[in-house]
Amino acid sequence: MRTDGRQYDETRAVTITPHYIKHAEGSVLIEVGDTKVICTASIEERVPPFMKGQGRGWITAEYSMLPRATQVRNQREAAKGKIGGRTMEIQRLIGRALRSVVNLEALGERTITLDCDVIQADGGTRTTSITGAFVALCMAVNKLIQGGKLSKSPITDYLASVSVGVVKNQVCLDLNYEEDSQAKVDMNVVMTGLGKFVEVQGTGEESPFTREELNDLLAAAEIGIQAMIGKQKDTLGPLTAVVGAGANAANAKK
Amino acid sequence: MRTDGRQYDETRAVTITPHYIKHAEGSVLIEVGDTKVICTASIEERVPPFMKGQGRGWITAEYSMLPRATQVRNQREAAKGKIGGRTMEIQRLIGRALRSVVNLEALGERTITLDCDVIQADGGTRTTSITGAFVALCMAVNKLIQGGKLSKSPITDYLASVSVGVVKNQVCLDLNYEEDSQAKVDMNVVMTGLGKFVEVQGTGEESPFTREELNDLLAAAEIGIQAMIGKQKDTLGPLTAVVGAGANAANAKK
Amino acid sequence: MRTDGRQYDETRAVTITPHYIKHAEGSVLIEVGDTKVICTASIEERVPPFMKGQGRGWITAEYSMLPRATQVRNQREAAKGKIGGRTMEIQRLIGRALRSVVNLEALGERTITLDCDVIQADGGTRTTSITGAFVALCMAVNKLIQGGKLSKSPITDYLASVSVGVVKNQVCLDLNYEEDSQAKVDMNVVMTGLGKFVEVQGTGEESPFTREELNDLLAAAEIGIQAMIGKQKDTLGPLTAVVGAGANAANAKK
Amino acid sequence: MRTDGRQYDETRAVTITPHYIKHAEGSVLIEVGDTKVICTASIEERVPPFMKGQGRGWITAEYSMLPRATQVRNQREAAKGKIGGRTMEIQRLIGRALRSVVNLEALGERTITLDCDVIQADGGTRTTSITGAFVALCMAVNKLIQGGKLSKSPITDYLASVSVGVVKNQVCLDLNYEEDSQAKVDMNVVMTGLGKFVEVQGTGEESPFTREELNDLLAAAEIGIQAMIGKQKDTLGPLTAVVGAGANAANAKK
Amino acid sequence: MRTDGRQYDETRAVTITPHYIKHAEGSVLIEVGDTKVICTASIEERVPPFMKGQGRGWITAEYSMLPRATQVRNQREAAKGKIGGRTMEIQRLIGRALRSVVNLEALGERTITLDCDVIQADGGTRTTSITGAFVALCMAVNKLIQGGKLSKSPITDYLASVSVGVVKNQVCLDLNYEEDSQAKVDMNVVMTGLGKFVEVQGTGEESPFTREELNDLLAAAEIGIQAMIGKQKDTLGPLTAVVGAGANAANAKK
Amino acid sequence: MRTDGRQYDETRAVTITPHYIKHAEGSVLIEVGDTKVICTASIEERVPPFMKGQGRGWITAEYSMLPRATQVRNQREAAKGKIGGRTMEIQRLIGRALRSVVNLEALGERTITLDCDVIQADGGTRTTSITGAFVALCMAVNKLIQGGKLSKSPITDYLASVSVGVVKNQVCLDLNYEEDSQAKVDMNVVMTGLGKFVEVQGTGEESPFTREELNDLLAAAEIGIQAMIGKQKDTLGPLTAVVGAGANAANAKK
Repeated sequence: MRTDGRQYDETRAVTITPHYIKHAEGSVLIEVGDTKVICTASIEERVPPFMKGQGRGWITAEYSMLPRATQVRNQREAAKGKIGGRTMEIQRLIGRALRSVVNLEALGERTITLDCDVIQADGGTRTTSITGAFVALCMAVNKLIQGGKLSKSPITDYLASVSVGVVKNQVCLDLNYEEDSQAKVDMNVVMTGLGKFVEVQGTGEESPFTREELNDLLAAAEIGIQAMIGKQKDTLGPLTAVVGAGANAANAKK
Repeated sequence: MRTDGRQYDETRAVTITPHYIKHAEGSVLIEVGDTKVICTASIEERVPPFMKGQGRGWITAEYSMLPRATQVRNQREAAKGKIGGRTMEIQRLIGRALRSVVNLEALGERTITLDCDVIQADGGTRTTSITGAFVALCMAVNKLIQGGKLSKSPITDYLASVSVGVVKNQVCLDLNYEEDSQAKVDMNVVMTGLGKFVEVQGTGEESPFTREELNDLLAAAEIGIQAMIGKQKDTLGPLTAVVGAGANAANAKK
Repeated sequence: MRTDGRQYDETRAVTITPHYIKHAEGSVLIEVGDTKVICTASIEERVPPFMKGQGRGWITAEYSMLPRATQVRNQREAAKGKIGGRTMEIQRLIGRALRSVVNLEALGERTITLDCDVIQADGGTRTTSITGAFVALCMAVNKLIQGGKLSKSPITDYLASVSVGVVKNQVCLDLNYEEDSQAKVDMNVVMTGLGKFVEVQGTGEESPFTREELNDLLAAAEIGIQAMIGKQKDTLGPLTAVVGAGANAANAKK
Repeated sequence: MRTDGRQYDETRAVTITPHYIKHAEGSVLIEVGDTKVICTASIEERVPPFMKGQGRGWITAEYSMLPRATQVRNQREAAKGKIGGRTMEIQRLIGRALRSVVNLEALGERTITLDCDVIQADGGTRTTSITGAFVALCMAVNKLIQGGKLSKSPITDYLASVSVGVVKNQVCLDLNYEEDSQAKVDMNVVMTGLGKFVEVQGTGEESPFTREELNDLLAAAEIGIQAMIGKQKDTLGPLTAVVGAGANAANAKK
Repeated sequence: MRTDGRQYDETRAVTITPHYIKHAEGSVLIEVGDTKVICTASIEERVPPFMKGQGRGWITAEYSMLPRATQVRNQREAAKGKIGGRTMEIQRLIGRALRSVVNLEALGERTITLDCDVIQADGGTRTTSITGAFVALCMAVNKLIQGGKLSKSPITDYLASVSVGVVKNQVCLDLNYEEDSQAKVDMNVVMTGLGKFVEVQGTGEESPFTREELNDLLAAAEIGIQAMIGKQKDTLGPLTAVVGAGANAANAKK
Repeated sequence: MRTDGRQYDETRAVTITPHYIKHAEGSVLIEVGDTKVICTASIEERVPPFMKGQGRGWITAEYSMLPRATQVRNQREAAKGKIGGRTMEIQRLIGRALRSVVNLEALGERTITLDCDVIQADGGTRTTSITGAFVALCMAVNKLIQGGKLSKSPITDYLASVSVGVVKNQVCLDLNYEEDSQAKVDMNVVMTGLGKFVEVQGTGEESPFTREELNDLLAAAEIGIQAMIGKQKDTLGPLTAVVGAGANAANAKK
């Protein structure tokens, strides 16, 4: 058993509160255990300079933590005058993951920016950000459809993410901060509703891992991701913005 | 009557939720109308280099807005690589205001940093930050007392802040964003429980103002600040960290 | 009596040397006691991007101190790679104050930048900068009129500034550096020729202040500001660029 | 067959030139096809501040490309004033990978910095950097042993890296730039001499991938990595700095 | 004849006003024609980290122009967030030149910083800065001697600088801005009182120059530099801080 | 005799390897003794904003050292977030020198950027960069001619550079790092094939120098520069891009 009483393949409690920030086109407060992230989706009717005139849209993400989201206060990146490597890595990951389930041509020449701001951190902030940002993105797309700017959704499948790891020689799902600090192997996985991989990022800095461990980690991740997608569907309700094969398959599984 | 139905000398609804962030020594979510700010107090057992060895403590503040706290998304200051003038002005104001009611010698050689992060903005974010940060500061001081690190509180009086302004030739208390955009005169006032001024910052860029208008603005501010202090007392309860003349007078008024 | 022999409501000696820098459209060296500031006004026939096409002009200001303007050498902000909070606060104040007496529509789509460079500092550098910059601004406007680019002046009133404070329990006008270091309350006031307030910025970080003290401080400030405006008139002479109610009233007072 | 005539599971030609930079404690020019990277190892007899006094050493890496390493000239990061997200991600990856095969306690309180400078890029620059940096690291460790500063090597296994991907629905090993631009799935794998995974970073931004594809990609990567380790052994010769289980197993395979 | 009526080998009028800034240990306003520079010398009783414990002092310089020192307003380097290449080149030159006539061992472990701030520019700002900074440096050294911190001066010779150039095929001494813009060859020369070269920086970007032209330029520079040194002696008076061979020779020439 | 056995007026061995980087329009690896620099020329069909529409081209240069090009590892300028003074000085020098032998009107509205990256440093990196960059520039110009974008070359003469200095009271040509560290006088000279001076930068920070020493230094530099130009001709072969008086004279000398 784990220190917080969970089974090895059990996620923490997940709560997704939609419409959390009134100004944003889409927004949620997502809580996975004690990790809390505000995710907002902001629509702009233009694309970055390098994409102009191609008839395609863009999805991008930014990630940050409040200084006291963590046990020890962190200096703000604005105060340091630059964004750190960890933050860059995470925001590149979030953007890339979300783009994998969006048909950018169908989105049209507009940008949706997903801001993921961690207000309390207890492990899994990047995976929680992806899971929450997907819901905010769907809400923003619904707004475009309701406003007549899009006739159908460019989102092709559900998308969620969890962390898995090897803690005390045991494969565990959805690590909290305490477990994460002790993990010998740490892996973040992003999958679609159809069960395909979008990102697999495993690292064994403390201890290289075998092919068997990799297999077990991926199996645990799949369980967690499907649970996350269930919560996303509950939040989005019947007015979901997900279409195509992914949505069909997901609906069939319901 | 005002657009949101308030009297001219009426504040918006105020809610202060304590213990909002589990890691911080003090924290609140303060809501004044639709303006929402997370205020955390973080204690460090050291002072900035320029204060070392003087036997005095330090209180400092940082302020930021989430990118989508506002109607139109703002670029992050971390992404710009520097903190803007408005942010600097506000965080200097918050720190200065809080220091005015703290006996830094009695605090001892430690620093308390107040982080004020606006998650939703609808006017008055700097004044709301001051009012909320004061509560977080008291909570952190209580923790120092409970932990035996301080025998009595170094906080000498209550402290709160409101904005006032001249909107359509009418002196108004606690402006929301819509009113703030139309105001010809804009003033932020910080006062203590004893009714003394800590900061008076009035600006008539759109239209210089007379001594009479100034008097009316200050009178409205005093009403609002005493209301804010009432909410602070409700939140802090009997275990308040405020001592000395300010606390005594405030208690007498109860 | 004060350490330099002045009355409590007496300013230091004021000298304004016009045409101090040959390249600038307007320029002065202003000396208030030992505080010396070079103020230049530079005209550009364009406005910042956010104002384009609105038919309005813009007035902005920058402020800096030479490294050895102060008793101890300060590091240059260019060497630090960023502008500090104090500098930002001051240059925002100067720009805002000057704009309050300029009809931006009447100025037309052009920008006047006021550069205030403190070459020697002895208290009151921001208020001295405002008083000097107003004269440089008038000189630049006169140049526009003489060059046929403007038919009449967009400046609606005189504008000057002084600091006041409570030093050793005594309200004092125009603090020098030594007094400023000892002041419990510190206030900068900007007023127009008609006697209206443009900015009131009072701070009692060391000791909150009462309404009575505030009243006395404002009264002292008014005396000082009218003295400063007298010096401005002497410098500008009959060819003043100030028009409208402010100028009329000021002339009537002569 | 591939555009350059290779088999799907064939790497490009690999050349490792040791002692390429005379000042460095370890250095190579590694060429994998037309990708050319100078890797140097620099020893400093101190550790970063956050590690002081723990009796452990540190391995870190930096990565850069010459401006004209690429088809179109890239602006220097020094000229931009900041390091981009891609560079940060890569240098964090290289450092993490190398640390996984070094016993930091056995290294002692010293830092070895691996600089990987790409002088010509044709795909796989990050994996080539890891493979080359490992050799430079071994050379530097040998120097420490020869100089009497270490009695035995802290390196516990061989380490190399390759990229794999799905190009035109075919799993390919060691993608060149042209293939990389067309790949639907892109994966970088780092493995040890014993065949354990250190990093698995797969991304299907263009097209999510199945578990079967993942398995095939990992199998191809293993072939490539063992080929790279063979080249490393040829370069290092009998005086290899690799010890322990990894070295033993590797030697047994010879 | 030149546009301002000077002979080809004639400098502009030179004025050096000592004690220009009251806080600095040494200061002058130097005017060479319409070029005006404030030079201050600031003493700190410490050396930069890289020189600690060597028993030697350090001389360094910084250079800047007020934004409106020039015909067209320049953006401040503090606003740009970095110091430009031209500024760096100039401040390195000033520091290097001054160090050539100071015995750093004799100075002791202290730093003298020369700040050269151009308040009005009309050609030759770097050479004027060197000539003025030398006087400020001597004043600061005199203060150290008077304060008993040094028993004798570490300055070994006089030092001054002028620009020379080829304008309309004519070698000219001390170019003003108009001449400088037309010069095909531009050279800055720094010499000692003894007539030795400290810096020779000639550039013929517009038109490479011959050995004969170089000889003529150096001859003109020598005339100008001796004139500048004459002005320095007049300013410093009998209490000069220059000692040793340079001073002796210079005195002999008087 | 010198420590490496050379005569006082003898350069080190020079090797120029053309076509070193496949993507660049021109590129060489130039080795002068143990100093090794990669020089690439990149053509862009546009000019910087300040030159647009003038019908003239632009030549610019950037310079950098790999961190371990030197005996002790240097921090990267990208990591520091800014380019240092020495680097700026050098890249300004390289650009200026090359422009002196290019007819910018004849080049047309395009930019050629010369990147000089020092991979191993042993004295004379800036002069070696100039000599190598000239060859890369010629190669790029030949490409423009071969591609029909230019009908004839805009390069008007050969150009090369060497360092000279006074070491142990002896004028020496082409100093290596050890000599450079001991030099009392240090001079970099850039000359054309016709023997005219483009840059003369001599500095005697350690010891001012006489007119006689200056003459001897220039004579040694001329010998070295003609040797460098000989190597450039050997590399460029008959298809040289140099035209006009410079080329003619140079050919005549052959």
